[in-house]
Amino acid sequence: MTLAIVGLGAIGGSFAMSLMKNSSEHIIGIDIDERTIEYARKEQIIHEGTTRAEDVLGQADIIMLTLYPSQVAPYIEKYKSYFKKGVVFTDVTGIKTSIIKDVTPVLPDQSDFVFAHPMRGSEKKGISGASIDKFGGANALITPIPSNRTENIEKVEDLYQKAGFTTITRVTPEKHDEQIAYVSQLMHALSVSVVNSEQASDDTLLFAGNSFKELTRIADINVDLWSELFLHNKDALLETIQSFENELDEFKSALKESDEDKLKAFLSRARNQRREWF
Amino acid sequence: MTLAIVGLGAIGGSFAMSLMKNSSEHIIGIDIDERTIEYARKEQIIHEGTTRAEDVLGQADIIMLTLYPSQVAPYIEKYKSYFKKGVVFTDVTGIKTSIIKDVTPVLPDQSDFVFAHPMRGSEKKGISGASIDKFGGANALITPIPSNRTENIEKVEDLYQKAGFTTITRVTPEKHDEQIAYVSQLMHALSVSVVNSEQASDDTLLFAGNSFKELTRIADINVDLWSELFLHNKDALLETIQSFENELDEFKSALKESDEDKLKAFLSRARNQRREWF
Repeated sequence: MTLAIVGLGAIGGSFAMSLMKNSSEHIIGIDIDERTIEYARKEQIIHEGTTRAEDVLGQADIIMLTLYPSQVAPYIEKYKSYFKKGVVFTDVTGIKTSIIKDVTPVLPDQSDFVFAHPMRGSEKKGISGASIDKFGGANALITPIPSNRTENIEKVEDLYQKAGFTTITRVTPEKHDEQIAYVSQLMHALSVSVVNSEQASDDTLLFAGNSFKELTRIADINVDLWSELFLHNKDALLETIQSFENELDEFKSALKESDEDKLKAFLSRARNQRREWF
Repeated sequence: MTLAIVGLGAIGGSFAMSLMKNSSEHIIGIDIDERTIEYARKEQIIHEGTTRAEDVLGQADIIMLTLYPSQVAPYIEKYKSYFKKGVVFTDVTGIKTSIIKDVTPVLPDQSDFVFAHPMRGSEKKGISGASIDKFGGANALITPIPSNRTENIEKVEDLYQKAGFTTITRVTPEKHDEQIAYVSQLMHALSVSVVNSEQASDDTLLFAGNSFKELTRIADINVDLWSELFLHNKDALLETIQSFENELDEFKSALKESDEDKLKAFLSRARNQRREWF
């Protein structure tokens, strides 16, 4: 089978590298940057590559779109006359309900779109951020929609397995977005808010230990991508922030009242839950 | 000179190990746990050790109290008749104004207390959490008070240098507490509130990437110690939380209004500040 990967950045490049090694797919790389294609060809990250998508898209049985959320539906519309009958699309975006809503109306007849989310972000952009073992031990989520053919879902899951993902879970798009709002988007919202606090100063690092460095790592954020991710998941994210604020309010009230028992109960609850998880 | 370290836990034990190697101090370990003393003697983490503080405190030129905030003043009161004239005390607690207020009235005549804060926490408790290179590359803060003799401050700074600390900074107790509320206590307050969110569930880890694991690491908290640290720094911490909440509110309002420009400006500000720091 022929797999076309659209976008050879940190995510697309890592899929190409790991699948060149661990799968028998014929891999075509498509990127808007000629140097990226040259590099990928030279390093044998792909079997063939081009900046001219229209020349190769027709060969692909599976097309993995590693694009920003707002680019996915327009990309399919732009190249709709080129796709092979029965082609399977898949994406890698971090939000699901809104992209499904965008994409479904423009999907060519006799094609299928298996929406997926590889849970391994990167602060490094571009193909230089790609690596063959990037997905080792990582989680992936597949969000099937009623029109998906089971065999196509399995095809995409097979690619993820061969790319190194350890746990691949099927969930509804709605549950995906609620949970991602919590485990990922909330972390980013907290981190950027911490860094933007008026207390931030040139002196900050004199006082900082490991926890500050760790918690603010993700504040070095990809602004364009994350503003899309946040805005596309606005409702779920606002609800998640509210749930978090309820807890922070409980912490604050224990503190204000100097209620040691209440504070200890709150801390114990968190400690026990964290230990259960890890 | 003779240094007594009271409490051979992760912090006290690491001071003992590194100072046995890098200083010429005669090091006496004091702990309430006989097995800890035996272990420390056998492993040559100390020159001598005992659970009977009253037998050895009189020999010490410097006494490092690695105790919880609430234990420091009572400890000095309890053993006030045993201390050598001119003894220098130092502590390792993570809050300063309240401990200075507690300790100053009970300080023996002709003694000096140099308040200090080694900025390297530990999730591991006890001497098994100690290591000879624990403080390598870490920051330390010294909060001098008007009654401190310069040579005593320098003595403590010298110990910290020999223990491996890279940056040792003198600040006022007030600035210390404000900054620690921000860079350390706020991180812990956010982490425990995230973990306590009603969205937390057995499924959470299926959705979690690195950022969730990292940000919640410190939710595995030492409940007794941190409830003291939070309560002893209540005012500064509540102000810090307020500053953080102001930023989170700005983030939320950009999101609610779907104001992409405002959101991008907010994220860019954080990204730039984070890059300036690290």
